[in-house]
Amino acid sequence: METSFDCIPCFVRQSLDAARLATDDRSVQEQVLHVVLWRMSQMSLRQSPLVLAQQVHRLVRDLVGQADPYHEVKQRANALALELYPRLAEMVARSDDALETALRLAVAGNVIDLAVQGHVDREHVEGAISHALAAPFNGQAADLTRAISRAESILYLADNAGEIVFDRLLIERLSPGRVTVGVRGKPVLNDATLADAQATGLTDLVEVIDNGSDAPGTLLHDCSEAFQQRFEDAELVIAKGQGNYESLCHLRRDIFFVLKAKCTMIAAGLGCPVGSLVVRRSGQRTGET
Amino acid sequence: METSFDCIPCFVRQSLDAARLATDDRSVQEQVLHVVLWRMSQMSLRQSPLVLAQQVHRLVRDLVGQADPYHEVKQRANALALELYPRLAEMVARSDDALETALRLAVAGNVIDLAVQGHVDREHVEGAISHALAAPFNGQAADLTRAISRAESILYLADNAGEIVFDRLLIERLSPGRVTVGVRGKPVLNDATLADAQATGLTDLVEVIDNGSDAPGTLLHDCSEAFQQRFEDAELVIAKGQGNYESLCHLRRDIFFVLKAKCTMIAAGLGCPVGSLVVRRSGQRTGET
Repeated sequence: METSFDCIPCFVRQSLDAARLATDDRSVQEQVLHVVLWRMSQMSLRQSPLVLAQQVHRLVRDLVGQADPYHEVKQRANALALELYPRLAEMVARSDDALETALRLAVAGNVIDLAVQGHVDREHVEGAISHALAAPFNGQAADLTRAISRAESILYLADNAGEIVFDRLLIERLSPGRVTVGVRGKPVLNDATLADAQATGLTDLVEVIDNGSDAPGTLLHDCSEAFQQRFEDAELVIAKGQGNYESLCHLRRDIFFVLKAKCTMIAAGLGCPVGSLVVRRSGQRTGET
Repeated sequence: METSFDCIPCFVRQSLDAARLATDDRSVQEQVLHVVLWRMSQMSLRQSPLVLAQQVHRLVRDLVGQADPYHEVKQRANALALELYPRLAEMVARSDDALETALRLAVAGNVIDLAVQGHVDREHVEGAISHALAAPFNGQAADLTRAISRAESILYLADNAGEIVFDRLLIERLSPGRVTVGVRGKPVLNDATLADAQATGLTDLVEVIDNGSDAPGTLLHDCSEAFQQRFEDAELVIAKGQGNYESLCHLRRDIFFVLKAKCTMIAAGLGCPVGSLVVRRSGQRTGET
């Protein structure tokens, strides 16, 4: 996916958000902006948005001297989601179609995304849950259900901290023995890492592997060989969130992208309205319903 | 008003918007972004937002080789507003309090602001009209009405093209003989210039002077001496829009700012929710109601 120029102001905003999370010192915030503006002025702006974002966030972490400016934000997102978990698990258990309900809640969890929203609040998440339970799916949700029923191995690529608790609701319905969850290899934005999988109990349920990369998505060439092998071997890949969609949507293999279309660029790429619950099949069988 | 760092990504977006209005050539758009990012990386980001915006938009105009990238957009905004004018004028004439209704419509017109909204559409303007007719004022609207009843001379600082047709509804209720309207001296963003005042008939109603400056607000030190004198001499100054507020809110003289608070930074500065209809008194008598 080529970077839309619309992503450029957004990356500037993200660098400011990250700097503010790291420090209240306005001089440091200004320095981060200056250096990010300068570095971006030297980059090709037609690179993949994930590559640009990876570079910008590496730079910000260097400048603020913190390996994980989003650490506390991720902890809060995990705590909020864990607080909601018992009620949501009961909702799934009591529903007529537990798999569909869990899928809807997994999409709802995708609103926990600081990269787009700038913040996480309970009211917003509750709103997303109500919306996800009622709104139509955009794409091939029935295809995903069929693929799930047949697959012997599933690689589930997680997206954000907090959101992975919502993913857990879905993973619990997938016969977890055949599921491996992939998380980012290093902290970037509020993306889920192994620490978040551990903190939210996901590692007790399934095997969780990290992809070795600090891109806020899945740039396969940047992932560890072990991860690339697991990606190739998986019969079914379920990829959560915009970052995974941006980085994998061009691949010629069967992937189901599960996300909420939160930004106008992604929604335009998917051909759906902003806010849609998306289950989109990619690769060689794109277009089947 | 010190630039909030939040304005920085917004200026990057504005430069992209302007480049896109000027050309469909992605290479030129990319060049504009590169140069704007580079130039901003060299600027103090603590300067007034108006000064930064002025520099950024000068740069963009140079790079795209157009003195007025917003020319067509402004023409469309004027045409849309003129189409609405007869109905709105009748609404004012039939209302119980014509001055208040005209004031409300003038605030509604302030939504015609590409700098914030990125586009102008009829539905949006109609929504703003309905909202402005019903919502409470934030600030000192009654003070403004009293000041209007007493003033011998009124300097009305216009904001955007299209919006000035809404301003006309209010100016018609001010005994136009005592009113002078100030517009920008040169094209910048979609801000109203003398050409827009002429195109919308405002010059037939009142004296319209340009301020000699290409800042998207009123940077007095950058305005012509003639304008500065008129500003000093005016008994009452009514300043429309965020740009005029940003550039004049620190002055120790009596000014009434009339605007819709469209961005979070301005709303925070005013201490009101985003979307508020604002009539705010500034200067030595700030705080009176």
